[in-house]
Amino acid sequence: MEKVEQAFKELLKEQAAYREAIALTHWDMRTKIPKKGVQQRSEVVGFLAEKLHQLETSDKMKEYIDSLQHTDDELLKKIVDDCLETYERSRKIPTDEFKEYVMLQSQAESVWQDAREKADFSMFQPYLEKLVAFNKKFANYWGYEENIYDALLHNYEPGVTTKVLDEVFPKVRKSLTSLLKKIQNSSVTPEPSLLTVPFPKKDQEALSIEILKRMGYDFEAGRLDDTIHPFAISLNPNDVRITTRYDEKDFRMAVFGTIHEGGHALYEQNISEKLVNTPLATGTSMGIHESQSLFWENFLGRNEAFWNSHYDLFKKYAPKQFEKVSLEDFYQAVNEVKPSFIRIEADELTYCLHIMVRYELEKALINGEIEVKDLPQLWNEKMEEYLGITPPSDREGVLQDIHWAGGDFGYFPSYALGYMYAAQIHHSMNEELDVDKIISSGNYTDIKQWLSKNIHQYGKSKKPLEIINDVTNESLNPDYLINYLTEKYSNIYKF
Amino acid sequence: MEKVEQAFKELLKEQAAYREAIALTHWDMRTKIPKKGVQQRSEVVGFLAEKLHQLETSDKMKEYIDSLQHTDDELLKKIVDDCLETYERSRKIPTDEFKEYVMLQSQAESVWQDAREKADFSMFQPYLEKLVAFNKKFANYWGYEENIYDALLHNYEPGVTTKVLDEVFPKVRKSLTSLLKKIQNSSVTPEPSLLTVPFPKKDQEALSIEILKRMGYDFEAGRLDDTIHPFAISLNPNDVRITTRYDEKDFRMAVFGTIHEGGHALYEQNISEKLVNTPLATGTSMGIHESQSLFWENFLGRNEAFWNSHYDLFKKYAPKQFEKVSLEDFYQAVNEVKPSFIRIEADELTYCLHIMVRYELEKALINGEIEVKDLPQLWNEKMEEYLGITPPSDREGVLQDIHWAGGDFGYFPSYALGYMYAAQIHHSMNEELDVDKIISSGNYTDIKQWLSKNIHQYGKSKKPLEIINDVTNESLNPDYLINYLTEKYSNIYKF
Repeated sequence: MEKVEQAFKELLKEQAAYREAIALTHWDMRTKIPKKGVQQRSEVVGFLAEKLHQLETSDKMKEYIDSLQHTDDELLKKIVDDCLETYERSRKIPTDEFKEYVMLQSQAESVWQDAREKADFSMFQPYLEKLVAFNKKFANYWGYEENIYDALLHNYEPGVTTKVLDEVFPKVRKSLTSLLKKIQNSSVTPEPSLLTVPFPKKDQEALSIEILKRMGYDFEAGRLDDTIHPFAISLNPNDVRITTRYDEKDFRMAVFGTIHEGGHALYEQNISEKLVNTPLATGTSMGIHESQSLFWENFLGRNEAFWNSHYDLFKKYAPKQFEKVSLEDFYQAVNEVKPSFIRIEADELTYCLHIMVRYELEKALINGEIEVKDLPQLWNEKMEEYLGITPPSDREGVLQDIHWAGGDFGYFPSYALGYMYAAQIHHSMNEELDVDKIISSGNYTDIKQWLSKNIHQYGKSKKPLEIINDVTNESLNPDYLINYLTEKYSNIYKF
Repeated sequence: MEKVEQAFKELLKEQAAYREAIALTHWDMRTKIPKKGVQQRSEVVGFLAEKLHQLETSDKMKEYIDSLQHTDDELLKKIVDDCLETYERSRKIPTDEFKEYVMLQSQAESVWQDAREKADFSMFQPYLEKLVAFNKKFANYWGYEENIYDALLHNYEPGVTTKVLDEVFPKVRKSLTSLLKKIQNSSVTPEPSLLTVPFPKKDQEALSIEILKRMGYDFEAGRLDDTIHPFAISLNPNDVRITTRYDEKDFRMAVFGTIHEGGHALYEQNISEKLVNTPLATGTSMGIHESQSLFWENFLGRNEAFWNSHYDLFKKYAPKQFEKVSLEDFYQAVNEVKPSFIRIEADELTYCLHIMVRYELEKALINGEIEVKDLPQLWNEKMEEYLGITPPSDREGVLQDIHWAGGDFGYFPSYALGYMYAAQIHHSMNEELDVDKIISSGNYTDIKQWLSKNIHQYGKSKKPLEIINDVTNESLNPDYLINYLTEKYSNIYKF
C-alpha cells in the first residue's frame, strides 16, 4: 500500500510540474511574449495541457484511485476523491466530442471578438448555439439531481445548486433595486470627476506596492507586472504573480485593481505546504476566490475607516490636486453608484444585478426555455427591468463578455456569490476582530492571518459551502451583503 | 513510409514543445522568478528535461530512425542523423551513472561557489577529481579516434579535434604574446578612466536598443531584459530573448554586452522556418555561435569605422562629460589591452591567452598527464608564462570559472575558435561587401543579410567546419585573427 501511495504521489508531482509549466506559459503570454512568438506558443500550451489531461485520465491513475480510495488518511482521501472526480468527469466526455468542442471554443472566441467589435450578434449566434448544445450534452454526461444547469454550476461552485441560487438571488435583487431607487432619489451626488486627474504611473505603482505590502502580499513569493487585463496566477504557493493596469488619468483602475488581484494572490500564497504537489493546492472555487479579492477591494479599499486613516498616505503619492479634495468628497466619489452597461465597470452595488441578468438567461438557455436567437432582446429587457437602462447596441449588451464564447456556462453566479461570501465572512471576522480598527492601524496582519487560518490554508481540501459553514456557522446567507450595502450606502447617500 | 515520417515529425514537435517550455523556464528563473519560487521550479525543470530525454532515447525514436535513415530527402536525412547521434550518445551512458553524475554536478557547483568565495581549492578538489573521472569514463563510452579529449570536444565543436587545436593554438599564442610585448612597450597609454563617468541606465538602455535595431534584431520576435549575468536564449526563432546588465558607472558593460548578446540572437532569429520543430533549429556549435556575437561586438562595436561615424550618436545618449573626450582618446580607451586575471573581463587581444591556459590544462587532465591537485600551481605558472601575471589567489585563478564545476570539459576552446571564425568570416565578407562603409552608413542590413544567408539560416543543418569551408573556401585558418589583431593594435599602439 505504501508503494502505491508513493507511486500515486509521484504521479501527482508530475501533474503539478505540468500545471506549473502551463501557468508560467500563460503568464508569459499575457505579460512578456513578443508578438511573433504567440503562434508557436499556443501549440506548446496545447501540448502541455494534453499531457496533463492524459495523466489525469490515465489507467494508472484509476488503478491508484481504486487502491487508495478507502484509506484512513483524511488528507489522502480528499486528494484521491478530487482525482476521481476529475478522472470521471473527463472520462464521461467522448474524446472526439471533446476535441471538437475545444476547436469550437477557439473559433467562437475569435468570431465573438469580431462580432463584438461590429456589434453584430448574428455573426456569433450559430457558434453560441453549438456551444449551448455541447454544454447541454456534457451536462447530461456528467449528470445532475434536479436541474441540468447544476451540472455546469458544479464546475465553478461545487455544492451550490440552482435551488440555492433561486432562493438567494431574487432576495438580493429585490433589495438592490430598492436600494438603487433610494440612491437615485438622494440629493447626494458624488463627483467622480474629482478623481480623474493626471496621476503618474510610477506614483500609482509605489502606492499600490505600499498597500500590497501592508496586506501581507509576499514579494519574495510573487511579483507585480503590467498588463491590459489584470489577473492573478499561481504557479505554486511560493510563486503567485499579479498584474495590474495603469491608467494615468484614473488611479482607481490600478489601485483598486491591485488590491483585488492581491486578495486573490494572498489566498494562493497561503495555502498549506502540505497541499503542494497535489491538485488541492489551489483555491476551492471561483466564488470563494472572488470573496477574497472582493473582501480586500471593498471591505478594505472602499471602506470609510480605510480612507479616514489612509487619506494622508494616499496624498503622499497622489498629485497635488488632491490637496483640495476633502476626505468626504473623496470617499463619496470612490463609492459612486450609477447603473452602467458594462459589468466589469460596475460599482459595488449594481454589480450583482449584472450577474442576475446573465444567470437567468444562461439557466433558461441550458434548460431549453429560451433560444439563442432571442438573447439580445431578453438581455436588454432584463437590463431595463433591473438597472433601468437599455444598452445602445449589443456591443454594450449581450456581446460584452467573453465567457459564453469560451463555453463557460455556470461561471457567472460565482461573481455574485463572491460578494455574498465576502460580506458573510466580514461579519464573522468582526465578531472576533475589530476589523475597522485594524484597518485604521495601517497594519493588516491580523486580517490576513485570520483569513489564512480560516480559509486560505485549506486550499481545495474543503468545499466552498464547507468553508462558509465552518467560518460563519451557517450556510450561505445573503442578508449580510444586503445589510452591509444598506448600511454603507444609506450613510453615503443619507437616506 | 509517409506515415512513419509523419509520426517522426510529431515526435520531433513534442520534443520542440518540451525544449520551448524548458527554455522559458530558464529565462524566467534568470530574469523574473521570485526568490521563494526557485526550489519548486528546479524540480519542474528537472522533470521537463527528463521527459525530453525520454523522448530522445525512446525505442520509438530508434524505430523511426531505422526506418528513415536511408531517405533521399536531404534535410530529413540530416534531422535523422542528428537524432541518431543524440540517441546513441545518450544510450551509451548507463542510466545510473548519468543520474549519479547529474547529482554530482549540482553538488560540485554549490561547493565550487563556496570554494571560490573562500579561495580554497582544497574544498573543491575531491569534487573536481570525481568530475574528471566521470568525463574520462563518458569519453571512453562515446569513443574517439586519436585523443580521448576529442570525445568531449565533440559535444561543443563537432569536427574540431585536438590535432586541429594543437596546430592552431600555439601559432596564435606566439603571435599574441609577441603583440602583447609590443603593446606593453608602446608609448601610447589609453586612459580607460575617461569612460567611467556616471551614465544613467535609461540612456544606456536607449542607446543599446538603438544599436540593436540597426543590427536588425527583431523586437517583435524577442525582448531585452535586465539581469546580473547577460545571456541570449532561443525559445524558437520567433522568440529569441536577450538580457543585459547596466553598470551606471561604466557603459561598456551594457553597450558591448548588448551588442554581443544581440549577435547571438540574430543567429537564432534567422534560422530557416524549415528547421522549426526539429532539433536542427539551433546554432550549430558553441564556436560558431560565439563567432556571431564576437563579430558584432568587435568588428562592429570596437571598430574604428563605427566610432568615426557613430561618436555623435553615442554622445546623443551619453552624459555631457563625453563632450570633452576626443574621438581618438575614446577609441583608444575602448580598445585598451592589459593582461588581467579574470577571463570574462579580458580585452579582445589577451582573451584567447586565457583560453589556451584552460585548454592545455583540461586536455592534460583528461589524458591523465596531470593531476587535479596540481591545477592551482600549473594554472599560475601558465598565467605567468602567457600573460606575465600571477593571480593573487585561486579566486582570481583556477577557481574563477563555473565550467569545470558543471563538468563542462571541452567547452573552453569554443571561445577561442569563435574569435578565429569571426575574423575569418569578416575577411570573406569584406571580399563581397565594403564592411566598414556599411558600418559607417549606420544601416547594417547588408551585413545581417550576408550573415543570415551564409550562416544563420542553416542552423544546425551544417557542421561548424562545413560552415567555415562554405563561407571562406578554406578550413579553419588562424592567420585572419592574427592579421586583424596585428593591424588593429599596431595602429592603436603605433608600432
